[in-house]
Amino acid sequence: MSELEIYAKQGFAQPVGIGSRPALVIVDFVVGFTDPEHFGGGNIRDAIVCCQQLLAHARRLGWPIVHTRVVYADDGADTGAFTRKAPGLLKLTETSPLSQIVPELLPRAGELVIRKRQPSAFFGTELVGWLLWKQVDTIFVAGCTTSGCVRATVVDALSHNLRTIVVTDCVGDRAMGPHEANLFDMGQKYADLMTSSEVASATG
Amino acid sequence: MSELEIYAKQGFAQPVGIGSRPALVIVDFVVGFTDPEHFGGGNIRDAIVCCQQLLAHARRLGWPIVHTRVVYADDGADTGAFTRKAPGLLKLTETSPLSQIVPELLPRAGELVIRKRQPSAFFGTELVGWLLWKQVDTIFVAGCTTSGCVRATVVDALSHNLRTIVVTDCVGDRAMGPHEANLFDMGQKYADLMTSSEVASATG
Amino acid sequence: MSELEIYAKQGFAQPVGIGSRPALVIVDFVVGFTDPEHFGGGNIRDAIVCCQQLLAHARRLGWPIVHTRVVYADDGADTGAFTRKAPGLLKLTETSPLSQIVPELLPRAGELVIRKRQPSAFFGTELVGWLLWKQVDTIFVAGCTTSGCVRATVVDALSHNLRTIVVTDCVGDRAMGPHEANLFDMGQKYADLMTSSEVASATG
Amino acid sequence: MSELEIYAKQGFAQPVGIGSRPALVIVDFVVGFTDPEHFGGGNIRDAIVCCQQLLAHARRLGWPIVHTRVVYADDGADTGAFTRKAPGLLKLTETSPLSQIVPELLPRAGELVIRKRQPSAFFGTELVGWLLWKQVDTIFVAGCTTSGCVRATVVDALSHNLRTIVVTDCVGDRAMGPHEANLFDMGQKYADLMTSSEVASATG
Repeated sequence: MSELEIYAKQGFAQPVGIGSRPALVIVDFVVGFTDPEHFGGGNIRDAIVCCQQLLAHARRLGWPIVHTRVVYADDGADTGAFTRKAPGLLKLTETSPLSQIVPELLPRAGELVIRKRQPSAFFGTELVGWLLWKQVDTIFVAGCTTSGCVRATVVDALSHNLRTIVVTDCVGDRAMGPHEANLFDMGQKYADLMTSSEVASATG
Repeated sequence: MSELEIYAKQGFAQPVGIGSRPALVIVDFVVGFTDPEHFGGGNIRDAIVCCQQLLAHARRLGWPIVHTRVVYADDGADTGAFTRKAPGLLKLTETSPLSQIVPELLPRAGELVIRKRQPSAFFGTELVGWLLWKQVDTIFVAGCTTSGCVRATVVDALSHNLRTIVVTDCVGDRAMGPHEANLFDMGQKYADLMTSSEVASATG
Repeated sequence: MSELEIYAKQGFAQPVGIGSRPALVIVDFVVGFTDPEHFGGGNIRDAIVCCQQLLAHARRLGWPIVHTRVVYADDGADTGAFTRKAPGLLKLTETSPLSQIVPELLPRAGELVIRKRQPSAFFGTELVGWLLWKQVDTIFVAGCTTSGCVRATVVDALSHNLRTIVVTDCVGDRAMGPHEANLFDMGQKYADLMTSSEVASATG
Repeated sequence: MSELEIYAKQGFAQPVGIGSRPALVIVDFVVGFTDPEHFGGGNIRDAIVCCQQLLAHARRLGWPIVHTRVVYADDGADTGAFTRKAPGLLKLTETSPLSQIVPELLPRAGELVIRKRQPSAFFGTELVGWLLWKQVDTIFVAGCTTSGCVRATVVDALSHNLRTIVVTDCVGDRAMGPHEANLFDMGQKYADLMTSSEVASATG
């Protein structure tokens, strides 16, 4: 029995669908994740290009929009297990060019910019309360990396009972094996998978 | 450049190490995950066999021990996005044989048994407070599935700054591709990987 | 300048108002809090009597309804700081008569019953995700004690950006000084205050 | 029966005590809370004066130290229920003089400065993970207001199973009635109460 057959037989991958109040969450599309010398590589640049259309679509429809950045304290006061595992993260301080959102996706006034230290955009942040205030029931997720902060954010979104859709051409990773493996896991267990053009058709 | 080389070049996979106050967390080793007709298959049974030794070791050393079960309300009052994605989960009710911890790993008095509804053992549960009360700084994680509730638990453990070690032969999955892919992700970004015999030697 | 004048001058106590999707949250109206020999006294019995009408109203309108119970493990595995501060709490185990919801307010199928160990109904529970799934934007809070678990629940509800209304004649406390003092604090900073007949008129 | 007798009879107010790894948490001693024209008044200035000694003591002993500030987005992107209840809070933006920590208690490098939007210093912040990484088991709480953010922080600290001590002369409020009422509630149910000189003697 193939892996896909096991999941099918056990009833996974049922669609959750799109609710009535969507938001767009763009995870960590910051400069440091576009450069293979830092945390970039793979298909991350392609995903950013793709995300420009998705962001324009969300703005046209007036969806609540969230951007996240990874930001650690200048003096290292907030190091921990994650920065021990991947010490390069500590370069991402408030004013470092590496932790700025890429120019193609610059936030506008009224969009929420979240500073985060952990993989999930929900962990230790104001995100869930902000979505509640906006009465959001569905989030479309773009960003990077698919196998890292996107996945962690998606698992927390599902756990909060948000309908969660991963926009497959708007998420990217430094390496394609983990990108594909994590799309598989998320599609089976945590989220619906749609391309950005499917999102545009479905919500137009 | 291979995927491993990208991660190495970017400085991932540094060891976090074992602290001074370890605990053992066994995720969802319940009957329903041992049977391929429900949620089982793959190497889950092997992982349970292996985990018996690990549990005995933890008890001998007096570590705090946590077991988790997936439990939904009898009347379906707590359905949500996860049970929409994988409806079979709703069979896991308080008294269903499927949601009982496997006989090989039966909890003893004083060990914490957590009822959970979401992938992570931390989400909507008393786990982090319990570990704080016991002054735990390190968790060894066993259980299933590697690509599901184990991974979600590990990401949350790291996010809480716990030193987190995945015991590679004591975690299992219904399918080996996701098992391997998630061990890779966790080892690069969230946890140290050790076999149960390495754990025994290191903490003896 | 009186205390009320200070708060008025600083702009507190603005109404947040009722949204479009209300729920009812009844905190800890269990047998052990009705008896002064355990945790009861004061106006708690009066509040329970009053709450019967409020519950009937909520059921008639089809609001999502939540009941909470305090429940600790039979073997004391989950003791902690709160049970150190108030050791009598440990009598509240799953099958103890003291931890059963009072007969006047018995939950019906489809209503959520939350087991909690800490003051707030949100802390370490599934509550926020359950409210999100139901698209709730407003909670009416009844229960006991006003100065304890009601207040802790209200602060967390506000922090999640839920519109929060304390139903003043449906909350009770073992002692009237703390009851009044906490209604004052909540009305100034965290919640709107309404009587149950005002709720009935406003949401009829 | 007096209120104190009810609490005594029901077994409240047992001491939790001081553990082996204390930290100091100073809540919202920012400029806007020192001025009665904004959010100040009462005994807040006295508490700040007192807190200078406590902070010096904590630094001498090398305790982990946390300061919190209330900070909302410049463009109002993160308004919500709390800022609806008390709209003046929105003046507390990143660069406003009102949201700066008072000069007497200026943070030093290595001390954690938390930006918060909700009453509790734990809610939507990195605080619990930071304390876990430092292996803290006890927090001494100073700051303002006693009936607001101090109390909310104390309830969350207890809920996380931290031993929690309110330093009675280092917490202040704009109005003395709520100050006293909340010290009573916290001492009965959530925290031990000590003066700063008792703290100095006990931890010297």
